[in-house]
Amino acid sequence: MYNFKNDYSEGAHPRILDKLIQTNLVQQAGYGEDEYAQQAKAILRDRLQNPDAAIHFVSGGTQTNLLVISFLLRVHEAVISAKTGHIAANETGAIEATGHKVITAETADGKLRTADIENVLKAHMLAPHVVKPKMVYISNSTEIGTIYSLGELEALSKFCHAHDLLLYLDGARLGHALAAKNNDLTMEALGHLTDVFYIGGTKNGALLGEAVIFNRADLGIDFDYAIKQKGAMLAKGRVLSIQFLELFKDNLYFDLAQRANALAARIAKAVSDKGYSFLTESTTNQIFPILPNELIEHLSQKYQFYIWKSIDSDRAAVRIITSWATDEEMVTAFIEDLNGV
Amino acid sequence: MYNFKNDYSEGAHPRILDKLIQTNLVQQAGYGEDEYAQQAKAILRDRLQNPDAAIHFVSGGTQTNLLVISFLLRVHEAVISAKTGHIAANETGAIEATGHKVITAETADGKLRTADIENVLKAHMLAPHVVKPKMVYISNSTEIGTIYSLGELEALSKFCHAHDLLLYLDGARLGHALAAKNNDLTMEALGHLTDVFYIGGTKNGALLGEAVIFNRADLGIDFDYAIKQKGAMLAKGRVLSIQFLELFKDNLYFDLAQRANALAARIAKAVSDKGYSFLTESTTNQIFPILPNELIEHLSQKYQFYIWKSIDSDRAAVRIITSWATDEEMVTAFIEDLNGV
Amino acid sequence: MYNFKNDYSEGAHPRILDKLIQTNLVQQAGYGEDEYAQQAKAILRDRLQNPDAAIHFVSGGTQTNLLVISFLLRVHEAVISAKTGHIAANETGAIEATGHKVITAETADGKLRTADIENVLKAHMLAPHVVKPKMVYISNSTEIGTIYSLGELEALSKFCHAHDLLLYLDGARLGHALAAKNNDLTMEALGHLTDVFYIGGTKNGALLGEAVIFNRADLGIDFDYAIKQKGAMLAKGRVLSIQFLELFKDNLYFDLAQRANALAARIAKAVSDKGYSFLTESTTNQIFPILPNELIEHLSQKYQFYIWKSIDSDRAAVRIITSWATDEEMVTAFIEDLNGV
Amino acid sequence: MYNFKNDYSEGAHPRILDKLIQTNLVQQAGYGEDEYAQQAKAILRDRLQNPDAAIHFVSGGTQTNLLVISFLLRVHEAVISAKTGHIAANETGAIEATGHKVITAETADGKLRTADIENVLKAHMLAPHVVKPKMVYISNSTEIGTIYSLGELEALSKFCHAHDLLLYLDGARLGHALAAKNNDLTMEALGHLTDVFYIGGTKNGALLGEAVIFNRADLGIDFDYAIKQKGAMLAKGRVLSIQFLELFKDNLYFDLAQRANALAARIAKAVSDKGYSFLTESTTNQIFPILPNELIEHLSQKYQFYIWKSIDSDRAAVRIITSWATDEEMVTAFIEDLNGV
Repeated sequence: MYNFKNDYSEGAHPRILDKLIQTNLVQQAGYGEDEYAQQAKAILRDRLQNPDAAIHFVSGGTQTNLLVISFLLRVHEAVISAKTGHIAANETGAIEATGHKVITAETADGKLRTADIENVLKAHMLAPHVVKPKMVYISNSTEIGTIYSLGELEALSKFCHAHDLLLYLDGARLGHALAAKNNDLTMEALGHLTDVFYIGGTKNGALLGEAVIFNRADLGIDFDYAIKQKGAMLAKGRVLSIQFLELFKDNLYFDLAQRANALAARIAKAVSDKGYSFLTESTTNQIFPILPNELIEHLSQKYQFYIWKSIDSDRAAVRIITSWATDEEMVTAFIEDLNGV
Repeated sequence: MYNFKNDYSEGAHPRILDKLIQTNLVQQAGYGEDEYAQQAKAILRDRLQNPDAAIHFVSGGTQTNLLVISFLLRVHEAVISAKTGHIAANETGAIEATGHKVITAETADGKLRTADIENVLKAHMLAPHVVKPKMVYISNSTEIGTIYSLGELEALSKFCHAHDLLLYLDGARLGHALAAKNNDLTMEALGHLTDVFYIGGTKNGALLGEAVIFNRADLGIDFDYAIKQKGAMLAKGRVLSIQFLELFKDNLYFDLAQRANALAARIAKAVSDKGYSFLTESTTNQIFPILPNELIEHLSQKYQFYIWKSIDSDRAAVRIITSWATDEEMVTAFIEDLNGV
Repeated sequence: MYNFKNDYSEGAHPRILDKLIQTNLVQQAGYGEDEYAQQAKAILRDRLQNPDAAIHFVSGGTQTNLLVISFLLRVHEAVISAKTGHIAANETGAIEATGHKVITAETADGKLRTADIENVLKAHMLAPHVVKPKMVYISNSTEIGTIYSLGELEALSKFCHAHDLLLYLDGARLGHALAAKNNDLTMEALGHLTDVFYIGGTKNGALLGEAVIFNRADLGIDFDYAIKQKGAMLAKGRVLSIQFLELFKDNLYFDLAQRANALAARIAKAVSDKGYSFLTESTTNQIFPILPNELIEHLSQKYQFYIWKSIDSDRAAVRIITSWATDEEMVTAFIEDLNGV
Repeated sequence: MYNFKNDYSEGAHPRILDKLIQTNLVQQAGYGEDEYAQQAKAILRDRLQNPDAAIHFVSGGTQTNLLVISFLLRVHEAVISAKTGHIAANETGAIEATGHKVITAETADGKLRTADIENVLKAHMLAPHVVKPKMVYISNSTEIGTIYSLGELEALSKFCHAHDLLLYLDGARLGHALAAKNNDLTMEALGHLTDVFYIGGTKNGALLGEAVIFNRADLGIDFDYAIKQKGAMLAKGRVLSIQFLELFKDNLYFDLAQRANALAARIAKAVSDKGYSFLTESTTNQIFPILPNELIEHLSQKYQFYIWKSIDSDRAAVRIITSWATDEEMVTAFIEDLNGV
């Protein structure tokens, strides 16, 4: 069985493991004060063209989300998310567990637009009997593979700042978004249009790790207290910083994402060529083909993937994910099996 | 400068890195469902002679403590700790952040005894105007290097069960405790005398990772929800399970701890031989010599360590920590510098 | 301007004030241990035909909801509510602030049915990446005036117990529900079909106060700790218990509710007679007539009420509320103004 | 049995009940928007000579403490209290339940001084492994009857502002403090030296109710959201505002406190005259005589009071409390019984 179920079935890119081995016995300060952290942060600040950015490395996406949101919101404030947003759908109430409501908006493609946020604000005017919306949470790429354009992010950014809302971008799959063929966003744009965002390592070559970036340095003051308090501070912080040092010291992070996207695109093209459609228009490493049930059953004998949603009695949407580590030959095999070759 | 400041200045034991490399591209289920986790848990259950134990792997000690305590306590319940206990002293209010009070007891040697707990219970009888003590938290070895004897743990266990209190043992440095020359506790005893405890990996050879063990399986039901909710579930759970698989597939975990203890003992002997005393009686890898200020200053030029506590105008207690990775030659050098050779 | 906006515009039923005055200087134990509390609880247990019921008095509905829900749920558990449910719509994230997600279900009439709950359970099967639904929250009467029948409550009760879910009923307007002309529920039925519920005083004659009833006494053990911890324990508990002693020592509670319902029914009949329809079918003290905008404007000059929802460009639904204290002559006047007399 | 156990054994001052009756059927806006609230706030702002003060009325002291502290602190921040402080000793972990640690300082007389706070700051320098002290909580009068002088409060205020700490004063028994014979503090001073404080109604003539005052109006913005969220917003807010309207429209609040203090002073004088000493030097309505055990037993046959603390095998300190409602004849009787007349 080959696994197209997720993008974390394998370990880390070999360069990261090499660096771990090579530095293994060098004594370093703990708790994120190691020299690799300093180096990785310098590189990232440079990429973002934001020398003031406050940067921290933590282990995973849910951890990052709950840390950032609970750190920035006051007790009566809430975060707005698409209904498909990871914080709303797949984090076991992690945000609510820190005391904050997640207000959801239905969206067709997993993306929030200013009109969605405006509707939420209108529905939350009966102060103080409702929570106060204070943050907008978006994912790029989204949980269903779509990406934000520069224009869309600019519009959100402008709207948020006009309405005293913080804009937070979950970049669990940021590499795949920025490496998508139709993308026009840049790291520099992210470094200025959002208030805070994170760069996902786990799903793009790292053993573990996400880089949290406060573009407004004042927002990040004291964040290390929160990291420690929520149990997210690794004694051997080097484990995290080395991931980002390797991924960003050259173009590795984006090269890996591009490879994943390209493999997904190969499968997507085969799906299209066979006349099948998709649940969402994805140019990233997650695609959602709508396939006949018997074909799904046939493919399931050799490949693992999620059956995402029943479409009608004959068809269902499935989720196929590729990654930096996906075996190209297995993609070829999958396409052949799809084509019934 | 050589670092005796802590036991997490280096990376992981080479065998762990080897295993990570060797298994790197093997596809595995995520979120703790990998086969290495199954193997490591089987080994640990066997060591504990408790086939029902519910075992989970998480990243760090503070994370483990807040997970276990917030999972097992109800809203009005509190945990009792020595004042020097890690949850009371060094976790940035992590337990309180989950809603629970940490009731502290002053103890001379960092260990809680039944009389300490009895005093707390007496001081919390004015229900419902006070919290309800429901859990006892102990560390072994303690934060100041001391260890519990089998008799002491049996007494605590008996007292706790008689008073409907849960007994939780923080084993961040459990290896060092069980490998101490005066230890008479066993893994099997821990597997039966405590309700829940954890085996610390980070400070004894692992890159990161602690193994949480619910000896009473019923207590552990649904704990995976909590792990996910608190952001502690790694997508690539293999990173954690491989640590414990390597450390426990033979005697590596205890060999590493013994080595650390032996190096600390060498320094302790030199301290004694020079006529200096100690703040606490430690047989583990943390020792607290009381040294003249000028000697401390002298040693500080070549070695890093904490100045723990001022004793009088001439002397202070320092903390010296050794680990599995401590360089034996640096121990020799330190002793020579101590002796003024 | 006469106020039909809510059912808490006036103070308390005079008998309650009389009793407060009459007992004012009698010394009583504090914190809910007064003799009036004992008397009121005995009366209520008798009404419920449940001698084991654990009963507590607290100040308001949101307070009760957050107390009960946070007390009974474990960290990873969530409560299911209709989208119009008070905990979901009007409590400023009070439940989330205690750490628990409120899962909402869309319903046409504000009532949850077993199919709604079943859908929620199906949508929360991806453990541990989603919260665990553990409690069902319903309101009777609902926030939009409708009531549950005995058959409906029996079906919910059976379903909940079969699926290990707690059934909690918010009775902020329980009097109005039980006094409704089409009601077939009884206090006895509530005392056995729900796990916990509350009887609302504030909206039916009390100065303040709700009576929380744990039908399963084991669920209520230690609840007084929670009351104190959440700041809900009044030093002068007599203030609360006297409300319920007066309301329930005879039929006053239901008489007051019946009067409110009857006055709402008079207005509803006038609305119907004029050919207008309603947003919801209410037989309780909240009605939601759909009126032409110009009529709404006209009535707004003399009466206060909420404009609940725009229906189309010409019409809106308004909310008219009556209470035990509503002036009968003002009802007559309102009807005349509605009729354009 | 006559009750000297606390100052909330009786109901409310008759003038408050009269006002409740007189206004009972006047329709008022709910949730604190009633006209009595406006009037009471205007009076208080005037007394404080702080026209910008943001004022809210809530039900009780624990509720006030948890509301203010959780509203003003960020996740990683903590509050400093004397070990005898109400939030540390008698609130069932209410502050911790909102996520914040209460750092305690041992003090002989229940009062915090700048040196105590300085010690706490020194002990919390190992950021980010410890919480960040951000607020100082004091009570006046303290839980053991003592009061702060103007000079002491000025020193605290200056120190707090110099160290970026918020100063919060719990005035559960503020009337008794300000009415004490050796008091030199004024309402105006409180209105400028603290950042936020509350005026206790419950223990000085009110049926229930505390007035929270944010001297810095910016600190109070959005506090109504918190009140609602924590279940502390009464639908019939008039119940609370009328208490303060009556207590402060003339000198009633201070007259009642002075009466309570005078009665306690009569008992204290009798105690002194008999040659007995006190646990604390109190000039307020709580006194702590140290009496022989047999005398305590004798008095216990006719009077209720707390046995506070065993002093030695022959003697214990008891707590005697008087209030606005204490029967003067019972004070005389108690003194006679004390004197063995």
